[in-house]
Amino acid sequence: MVRSPDCVFCRIVGGEIPAVRVYEDADTLAFMDIGPVVKGHTLVIPKEHHDAITATPLEVLQKLIVVVQKIAQAQVKGLGADGVNVTQANGKAAGQVVPHLHFHVIPRFLRDGHHWNWTPGKYESAEEMQNFADRIARAICQ
Amino acid sequence: MVRSPDCVFCRIVGGEIPAVRVYEDADTLAFMDIGPVVKGHTLVIPKEHHDAITATPLEVLQKLIVVVQKIAQAQVKGLGADGVNVTQANGKAAGQVVPHLHFHVIPRFLRDGHHWNWTPGKYESAEEMQNFADRIARAICQ
Repeated sequence: MVRSPDCVFCRIVGGEIPAVRVYEDADTLAFMDIGPVVKGHTLVIPKEHHDAITATPLEVLQKLIVVVQKIAQAQVKGLGADGVNVTQANGKAAGQVVPHLHFHVIPRFLRDGHHWNWTPGKYESAEEMQNFADRIARAICQ
Repeated sequence: MVRSPDCVFCRIVGGEIPAVRVYEDADTLAFMDIGPVVKGHTLVIPKEHHDAITATPLEVLQKLIVVVQKIAQAQVKGLGADGVNVTQANGKAAGQVVPHLHFHVIPRFLRDGHHWNWTPGKYESAEEMQNFADRIARAICQ
């Protein structure tokens, strides 16, 4: 198991820092976020240390998404959530605070009062959008 | 292939509605979001119609997360992104507009000016947090 000694989430995995655990298996841990965007907000992490989704082995990611689904289903069934947000940040620029891969699974209720700051932008032209698409497409690892 | 006749994303998959495609394989399509939160914002969807992560077969989800990673990596490499957000909404209460499972993959730059409305809440007591954890844990499908 790859661990990073100074990582808060690795220390939670190791039991050195307490957390309220929701689910655990050999590879994955789910525990309560202590600063919930909406109450019930759960974090799902691999036990192995990987900092970002871009640098995580696929088999780790594929095990993780199974648990993300389990938690989302359980928030609907167990909390009566009307919906669920699954969200994940990579890098400080994206708002990642703890550099150990984690999925936020956040139960949503019709009147929970939370609104994401979701402001759709726009491209200057069709060409500009195509240019962005081309730059991403050319960089995809096949 | 399961399709839903009135679904905008199924119609994009079928080529009836145009989209700027970034990546495609037998099961998955990635295309540009026309209202980008940050330019380069890409949507990753299964070609099969499934409305929410809670109701999507695991093999579909596991193929999808592979492409989510590919796009995130390509945004870093091809656009020079400093970070990436991966985010996903299930149900109107969560802000889902098109009821066909989709992951938003959003490139982030240190000075892109975007901020999520991420307001950590708090539990009234340790017991309240434990109560939420217990209700989720008891509802998990093993």
